[in-house]
Amino acid sequence: MKPALPGIFVTSALAFGAVASFCAATQPAPENASPIYGVTIPEGYRDWKFIAPAQEAPPLDELRSVLGNDIAVDAYKKGTLPFPDGSILVKLAYKRSQSTEFAPATVPGAATTVQVMVKDSKKYPDSHGWGFGRFVNGKPVDIAQHETCLSCHVSNVEDHDYVFTRYAP
Amino acid sequence: MKPALPGIFVTSALAFGAVASFCAATQPAPENASPIYGVTIPEGYRDWKFIAPAQEAPPLDELRSVLGNDIAVDAYKKGTLPFPDGSILVKLAYKRSQSTEFAPATVPGAATTVQVMVKDSKKYPDSHGWGFGRFVNGKPVDIAQHETCLSCHVSNVEDHDYVFTRYAP
Repeated sequence: MKPALPGIFVTSALAFGAVASFCAATQPAPENASPIYGVTIPEGYRDWKFIAPAQEAPPLDELRSVLGNDIAVDAYKKGTLPFPDGSILVKLAYKRSQSTEFAPATVPGAATTVQVMVKDSKKYPDSHGWGFGRFVNGKPVDIAQHETCLSCHVSNVEDHDYVFTRYAP
Repeated sequence: MKPALPGIFVTSALAFGAVASFCAATQPAPENASPIYGVTIPEGYRDWKFIAPAQEAPPLDELRSVLGNDIAVDAYKKGTLPFPDGSILVKLAYKRSQSTEFAPATVPGAATTVQVMVKDSKKYPDSHGWGFGRFVNGKPVDIAQHETCLSCHVSNVEDHDYVFTRYAP
C-alpha cells in the first residue's frame, strides 16, 4: 500500500511499529538459548580476556577458567560493583587430566560445560540483573539445572553482585 | 653537526647507524631481564588471550593459566609448528587456595611466579629459538633456576616445539 497522504503514512508506520514490537515480544528464543533466561553462548568469547582459573573437586574434578568481555573486565579492574549492564562472563570447564609429559601437572582433558552470566538489569529484574546459561556441546542443559543457578549465587556471593569469580592478579 | 652536502649526510648517517648498532650490542640488559636470556615481562600481557589452565601438584600446589600474544594464539589456532618468531607465552601461577564461598572449589591465592617464553630464532639459536624468563614479584629469579628451563622443555616436549601447553577448546 502506498499512502495517499502524509497523515496516513504516519498512522501506517505507527501501526507497523506496534506489530513489530508485538512480534519481538512473542518471537521464539534464539536457537540454543538457555531455558528461563534465554542466554546464548556469546560469539567470540574464546578470545575474551582472562579473569581467573579455578579447580572443582571430584566428582566433577575439573579445571576451569573464567573469561570476560571488555565491560566485565573493565569493571573488575576498577572494582565496579554491581557489574554494569552489558557485562558478560564465560566459564570454560574441562575434565582434569594427568599430563603425560610432566608428572606434577594436570591439564585440560575433555571440555565439559561452558557457563555464561549476562548482566542486563532490565531483562532480568527477578534475578538481580543476571541471566544464566549452562551449555554442554553448545546446547543448553535442561530447565532443572538452570533453576539451581540463581539460588546458589544468591546464597553464596550476594556481596559480590552474585559473582563468585574474582580477578586474579 | 649539520652536513654540508648530501654525500656527507649519507656517510654521517651510516656512521651513526654503526654506532647505534654497536651500542645495542653492548648495552646492558633491560632492567628486570632474566639471566641467560634477557627476557622481560611483556607489557600488557595480562590482557592477552587465554590458552589453557593447569594445576601443579604439591609441594608447589598451584593453579596456573597460560596467556599468549596474538602471534602465539594465531599459531595455536592454525596448528603452526614451530611457533613463529614473535610468539610470546606467559604463564601466571597462583597458590591453590580453598574457596571460602563454595566448598568444592579451589581458587587463586597469592600470585607466585610469572613465566615467559619468547620465540626469536635469531636471538636464541642455542635454545631452539626460545628465550625464558621466570619472575617473582616482577623480578627475575637467579641464574641457577633459569638453567633448568631449557633442559626440561627439551626432555619433555621437543615434538611440540618445546612448549608444554596445548590450546584448550
